[in-house]
Amino acid sequence: MKKFFEYNWQVRDEWFEWCNQLTHDELIKERQGGVGSFLHTLFHITEVEFSWIRAIEGKEDRPFHFEDFKTLPEVQSLSNELRIENAAFLQKDLLAIKDEFVTVVWDEQSYSVEDILHHIIAHEIHHVGQLSIWARDIERSPVPANFIGRKLGLSSDSVK
Amino acid sequence: MKKFFEYNWQVRDEWFEWCNQLTHDELIKERQGGVGSFLHTLFHITEVEFSWIRAIEGKEDRPFHFEDFKTLPEVQSLSNELRIENAAFLQKDLLAIKDEFVTVVWDEQSYSVEDILHHIIAHEIHHVGQLSIWARDIERSPVPANFIGRKLGLSSDSVK
Repeated sequence: MKKFFEYNWQVRDEWFEWCNQLTHDELIKERQGGVGSFLHTLFHITEVEFSWIRAIEGKEDRPFHFEDFKTLPEVQSLSNELRIENAAFLQKDLLAIKDEFVTVVWDEQSYSVEDILHHIIAHEIHHVGQLSIWARDIERSPVPANFIGRKLGLSSDSVK
Repeated sequence: MKKFFEYNWQVRDEWFEWCNQLTHDELIKERQGGVGSFLHTLFHITEVEFSWIRAIEGKEDRPFHFEDFKTLPEVQSLSNELRIENAAFLQKDLLAIKDEFVTVVWDEQSYSVEDILHHIIAHEIHHVGQLSIWARDIERSPVPANFIGRKLGLSSDSVK
């Protein structure tokens, strides 16, 4: 599981870098599908991951609003800041808590920690797939999405 | 890990069902990005998953070619057929083999079983994200991609 987070963070950082080639108008332009723009997507995956992990930890929700993050550096800074807390969480023994149920303020249902971690991972990969289409729409090569062939440094217990 | 495969298969089957609303021309129309069409994407994720799993099992590569699968039922039948072998593989003790290295005929590098399984999972979620944009491009609602809220029946050892 942890290795998927590291993959997502590496790919996300490559998209932040990739986005530097775009004008601000291209970054915030409303596009078909997903959450509507490159910048909003990067904000969205950052915010959703953090919200779910805080919920697992039983911490109070700390919502962020896209209107408050108008530029690429602002969204990237948010991603970097929130990742510190997320990375600390991932150091915990996830197997020990995987079957615990979590309730969140934005959903009536409760979900197991295991399912929430799966959800966070799939959520980001899905949205990144959307970015790759928008990149081609503006005739640019997207960030490569391959999992293999990357240098991922976490311990090999990530299948656990 | 196994739960991600079940998620991918459930979502893939929902996309096969979803594609029934499209004309054949819409299904095979070349689109921006990815592998170029709805039908080709469904074929591609099916074929890639099977090829990697056969490689992990040390079986001879059994390549398939998109030109030989011209309709939605043909691709869906292929997916259903190959899934039987894939599902049997996933019943094995993956933790016991996760660090074994695998060589494949289509790549000079060798990869661990663990990384290949991560790769297969992320590969399909990524391409499905692309389908969701193409769906909006033709003004249709895509298959929901949420992991949580689905009925996934595999045992809860999927974090292992």
